[in-house]
Amino acid sequence: MKTPSSLEFLSEALRRLPGVGPKSAQRMAYHLMQHDRDGAAMLGRALNQAVERVHHCERCNTFTENPVCETCLDPDRDLSLLCVVETPADQLMIEQTLTYKGLYFVLMGHLSPLDGIGPKDIHLEKLIARATDGVVKEVILATNFTNEGEATAHYISETLKARGLKVSRLARGVPVGGELEYVDAGTIARAMLDRRAT
Amino acid sequence: MKTPSSLEFLSEALRRLPGVGPKSAQRMAYHLMQHDRDGAAMLGRALNQAVERVHHCERCNTFTENPVCETCLDPDRDLSLLCVVETPADQLMIEQTLTYKGLYFVLMGHLSPLDGIGPKDIHLEKLIARATDGVVKEVILATNFTNEGEATAHYISETLKARGLKVSRLARGVPVGGELEYVDAGTIARAMLDRRAT
Repeated sequence: MKTPSSLEFLSEALRRLPGVGPKSAQRMAYHLMQHDRDGAAMLGRALNQAVERVHHCERCNTFTENPVCETCLDPDRDLSLLCVVETPADQLMIEQTLTYKGLYFVLMGHLSPLDGIGPKDIHLEKLIARATDGVVKEVILATNFTNEGEATAHYISETLKARGLKVSRLARGVPVGGELEYVDAGTIARAMLDRRAT
Repeated sequence: MKTPSSLEFLSEALRRLPGVGPKSAQRMAYHLMQHDRDGAAMLGRALNQAVERVHHCERCNTFTENPVCETCLDPDRDLSLLCVVETPADQLMIEQTLTYKGLYFVLMGHLSPLDGIGPKDIHLEKLIARATDGVVKEVILATNFTNEGEATAHYISETLKARGLKVSRLARGVPVGGELEYVDAGTIARAMLDRRAT
């Protein structure tokens, strides 16, 4: 018994999605063919359209359909602040806090030498050019607080400080609503070291 | 800050896949755009091709690109046996056992009155027409051993027996390699009732 080749091709293509193995891919393919052909056609269109239209912003490197993204063109932004994040999703989280009015630079990843991801892959040259435009006064590093994120922040910090820029990092500490009893020791140690006068 | 609309459309379309929520959809969309544009284009092609080419077999109702599927056209098959399964994935599992040489009928689902899935949705008319072609001597019910699968088997069994066909069901019992201590009581009770002379 052979699965129809276009169905097999679809299963295989679905495996290119992160976190989708052979069984889920097959389940997805059968589901689309049996219960949601409209959805399948729509997803096909969405993919083609996205591949065709989505590019990187010339200034901040995030995804956009225009040469420069809306955020970078926003006249109400504080041009002297540049926040460096790993992904557009991180940028979105910071935007949702409504506490930051500067601009962004999106690395689209983090340094990870073991996976062969070096400074070139996180667009460091582009970041340096962007940060040294003479208008940016402070670079805020908002990479993740994972090992890779910390290493990336450290590397960028050294590089930019060598060029005379002021560089800061998001504060580490106890999360809002956190109970000390359930917070890990590393976080509390950090919060103790970074304690501030009230 | 606004996500580019074609990226948002892609996230939304990815949510049509079973088991994919808003966060995973966004992660998938970013992953494809950043790391696997070839994969995205390939998935787009695969979807379009599948929607266009994949249909149901006229005889057994499984997915195929031809009017009648390869299995139904296979001259080495025993035409007197018809095995009823819920999905093509189940059919594939039975094929892999290499113990069955008859033909199949794929319901593409199971009865589930609570979800509004009745006899029409599992192509019962087509199954009756197929099973009463005069050549089929025995119908083997291989629906799942879930509540819905059992109910479906019971319903089909009654319908086909009323038309004078021999109907059988896959055996229930202790799985191969199973240790009694860890097998559930329902299965052991069933294995006891269905015990066979050695």
